[in-house]
This record gives sequence, structure tokens and C-alpha cells, in this order.
Amino acid sequence: MEFIPQDKNYASRIKESFARQTFMEYIGAKLAEVKPGYCEIHVPYRKELTQQHGYFHAGVVGTLADNAAGYAAYTLMAVDSSILTVEYKVNLMAPGNGEMLIAKSTVLKYGRTLTICRTDVFVQKNGVEKICAAAQVTLIELAEKKDGE
Amino acid sequence: MEFIPQDKNYASRIKESFARQTFMEYIGAKLAEVKPGYCEIHVPYRKELTQQHGYFHAGVVGTLADNAAGYAAYTLMAVDSSILTVEYKVNLMAPGNGEMLIAKSTVLKYGRTLTICRTDVFVQKNGVEKICAAAQVTLIELAEKKDGE
Amino acid sequence: MEFIPQDKNYASRIKESFARQTFMEYIGAKLAEVKPGYCEIHVPYRKELTQQHGYFHAGVVGTLADNAAGYAAYTLMAVDSSILTVEYKVNLMAPGNGEMLIAKSTVLKYGRTLTICRTDVFVQKNGVEKICAAAQVTLIELAEKKDGE
Amino acid sequence: MEFIPQDKNYASRIKESFARQTFMEYIGAKLAEVKPGYCEIHVPYRKELTQQHGYFHAGVVGTLADNAAGYAAYTLMAVDSSILTVEYKVNLMAPGNGEMLIAKSTVLKYGRTLTICRTDVFVQKNGVEKICAAAQVTLIELAEKKDGE
Repeated sequence: MEFIPQDKNYASRIKESFARQTFMEYIGAKLAEVKPGYCEIHVPYRKELTQQHGYFHAGVVGTLADNAAGYAAYTLMAVDSSILTVEYKVNLMAPGNGEMLIAKSTVLKYGRTLTICRTDVFVQKNGVEKICAAAQVTLIELAEKKDGE
Repeated sequence: MEFIPQDKNYASRIKESFARQTFMEYIGAKLAEVKPGYCEIHVPYRKELTQQHGYFHAGVVGTLADNAAGYAAYTLMAVDSSILTVEYKVNLMAPGNGEMLIAKSTVLKYGRTLTICRTDVFVQKNGVEKICAAAQVTLIELAEKKDGE
Repeated sequence: MEFIPQDKNYASRIKESFARQTFMEYIGAKLAEVKPGYCEIHVPYRKELTQQHGYFHAGVVGTLADNAAGYAAYTLMAVDSSILTVEYKVNLMAPGNGEMLIAKSTVLKYGRTLTICRTDVFVQKNGVEKICAAAQVTLIELAEKKDGE
Repeated sequence: MEFIPQDKNYASRIKESFARQTFMEYIGAKLAEVKPGYCEIHVPYRKELTQQHGYFHAGVVGTLADNAAGYAAYTLMAVDSSILTVEYKVNLMAPGNGEMLIAKSTVLKYGRTLTICRTDVFVQKNGVEKICAAAQVTLIELAEKKDGE
């Protein structure tokens, strides 16, 4: 499906919002790509982000799954809207064992109030990407409430 | 419901597992309480854990919801089992606006392979707890695979 | 938590809405109880409602979990609002093996737009209730759009 | 991804299992297609399957989403295994307004114990298919427990 963004400066709006999320910086997340209805976020491996077996922690996986969905949805929203996650559901399908975590999210349905996205999370090991989690995320658009205010 | 743990040393087993999760230390999480079928985790507010409005990031909320469920389930498991999250679903119901995030998880059904937990996440502001998220989590017990190995 | 309904005739409004859901009649569902923020629905066992092992079909279990949540939320809504399910998630924890399926749903958070409910589904066998499923449901209130119009 | 079924007679095994699900017959569901890792189920419109606005009931939508996932997963399982749904999550994105409901499910990850599927549910109106729901489903394989026994 092709999406037409309402705000042609969506990319810079998202970059600024992402930069305001201190937690993204804290876990070393980078906004790798945004296009209408799509967002991709990367997190390089660091010991600080791991669970008891030394793999990426499920919490980091879920965080990326949700956040990529939020910005995928946000590409389509009005310039003076902000966005909140209503809920997300994530299946952890394989250990997050690798040098990079990569979340790719796509808008499935953009609605006036609610938007639904699907996120696939991959772990890259020796340069090869393998799916490790799958999520479905519901987001709500808050009209006339700018993100940075 | 009253749960009888198989391993009477479950509390120390969980303390050790929690300590191996580097990500818990990184976000400042403390294991506040464990009892059979129950786990509570606290995270004090820090700027590093926030989203664009300065509240606890949804990723931190989801991380706690999942992790508290994992350890609630783990209280009931065999001494030589380890545990993995199969999936979790979390509704974010109010902003994480406060000085402490508190996740309380309870086992709803302990099964031979799968265990289901419900977690309520509260945000404490000026000493008053308010529910901010609700999760349902599915966990799997991996028999004869010790957590720290 | 105590809920104060906006519409004191919520019970008759719900009875009428339930009666308009032909599928409820088709599966033999009865509205057993409604009170502010709560709804209970019963379905007696019939061979038509079963899966391959002769137990209540997961689809019937999910239907009840969702529908009880919808009416629990609807007890709190304005007289001229209608309601839609945004999404639901249900864990099937035990076979639906018994003479009656009973869904009990409680509002966890009533919001201006979105309401979150939790439903426990029980199967009654020889008069004894046993939990067989647990759900978490997100609902949306459509203002100024009466249910029967 | 290409899936290699363990049981080359998977299609007839599924046809027989589907036929044992009395609820499928009761709602008029037809097994439209099965291939390795994929299943499609159709339900023609009938007044008995509707909610208060005369559209397909969310319960029917959820039932199909889950059932299509179950049989998509079952195409890959061993001849003497049976299958159960662990949990499913479904987003209802548009009214089920049309003459036919169509669920298409694909295996995302086939595992030794757990399998994850995604289902898209479409409603067909005047011959045009429109997505109305999206689900993510977790299933468990019960080894050495034949479906019809």
C-alpha cells in the first residue's frame, strides 16, 4: 500500500521527536530509516542491554518493536498531532543473539483516531539478519497537541 | 490461589538470576518482593528512562511488566529449569508520570510447559500509586536447563 | 474500584443492544449480570459449539471474552454513545470441558475515548467453575452515535 | 519462506480435523485452501453471524483468525501430533461489512514446541476484498497425541 503523508516534513519532525526520547539515546538506538508508513530502528549490541544469557533483553526487543511502530504511524499524522501507544503485543521467537537489533515497522491501517502497525524485529549476527520477534501495535493520534509541547 | 513452590530456595535462585540481567541494573530496577506466584519490581525515576514528554518510556513499562511476570512464574519452577517469555501484551493506560515505576505480577495459571501471568504496573507520584499499565504474559519453562548455564 | 454510570438506565440499554446481536442468540448466550463496570455472559454447552475434541471451541471462548468486555465497558458510557472493540487478546489456559461457559469481565480503566477490560472465562463442570481463559480487551467509545441506529 | 511439511498427507489430515470441528459447520465456514505454512478459511454472510449493526460479529472474525492460524501451523506438524491455541490477539480495523469473511494465515515461525502465525482477515463486498482484522496467534504442538483421538 502507498501512503501519502499529510506533513511533507514528517522526517525532520520524527528526527526531533526521536531525539527528545532520552531512553532511545540511553540504549544506543538509531533511527535508521523513515518513509511514509514505515520506520526502522537499530540498536548495536552492548553488555548493558542483556538478559541472563548475554543476549538482547526482551525488554529492549519490545521497546524497539513499539517505538518503530510509533514512528511508522507518526509519519502519516498531522503536523500538530502527537502520538501515544495504546497497547502492543510481541512474540519473542528466537534469542536476540547477535551484534545488532533491527526493528522494521509498517503501518497496516492508518485511521482517523487509531493506527495499527506490525513490527518485525531482527537480530543481525555476522551480518546475517534473522527474525527474532514479531509485534502488533495499536497507536492513537492526539490531534492539536504538538509532540514537543 | 495459594502456590507451593517446588524449590524452597526459589528466592535466592531468583535474586541470582535477576543479578545476571545486566539490563535490570542499567535501568536501575530493584527486585522488591518475591513470593510463590508473585513478583514485584521497582524502578526509580531517572531522566535516562523517559520519552519525549519526560515520563517513563513505554519500553521501560513493558520491560518491567514482562520481567515481573517472568520472575513470578519462575518462583514456581523446578530448580534446574530456566524460563523464557513466549509473548507479552501490554496496555498503556496512563502516562508514567511519577517518581517510581512499580510492576506487580501474579501467576494466573502455572502449567507443566506454559505459565500465564498478569502484571499491573503502577506509577507512584508523591507517594500515591496509580495504575498506568496492564499486561498479560505467556512464559515457557525449559526443563533441565539451569538459568545460569 | 466503584464506577458511577452516566446513564442510570444502562442495564436496559445493554439488554436491548445484546438482543440486537443475532450471533449471541445463535450461540445461545445469555446476559447473566450487568452492573457498573461489570458484565457476565453464560453459554450452555451444545454440540454445535465444539472443536475436534468435543469441548467448547476457542472461537466461542474468545467471542464471550470480547463480548463481556464490551458490555462491561458499555455500562459506563453515555446514553448516546456506541462501542466498538479495538482489539482483544485471549490466553486459552485449559480445555473448555463442561456444561456451561461463563465470561466475567471487569473494567480496569474507563477513559474518555478508550476503555480497557479484563475478562476471566470459566467452564463449569458438575457445578464447579474452573478458569479456562483470560483476556485483555481494548474498546472505543463512539460519541453521539447511538447503538441501535 | 518455503516450508517442507513432515507429513505429505497434511491436506487430508487437516480436512478431517476441520470436519470434526462442529462449530465450523455451525457458522458455515469452508476450508478454502491449505498449503505448507498457509491456510485460508471462508465464511459466507448470514444474519445469524452478526452484531448489532448487521455486520459480521467480532467473535466470528476472531474465530476465523485463530482457526486459520491453527491449520496453517498444523500443515507443518508431525502426523501423530495435535495442536492447541495458546493465545491469540486480534485487532478489528474495519467493520465486517460484506458478503464473505476471508481469513488468510501464514506461519511466521515454526518451532519444535511453539508456532507463531499471522492472520489477515478480509471482508469481501461486491467482490472486492478489504482487510478488516489482523491477528497474531501462538500455537502449541502436542506430540504423540493424534487429533482425532
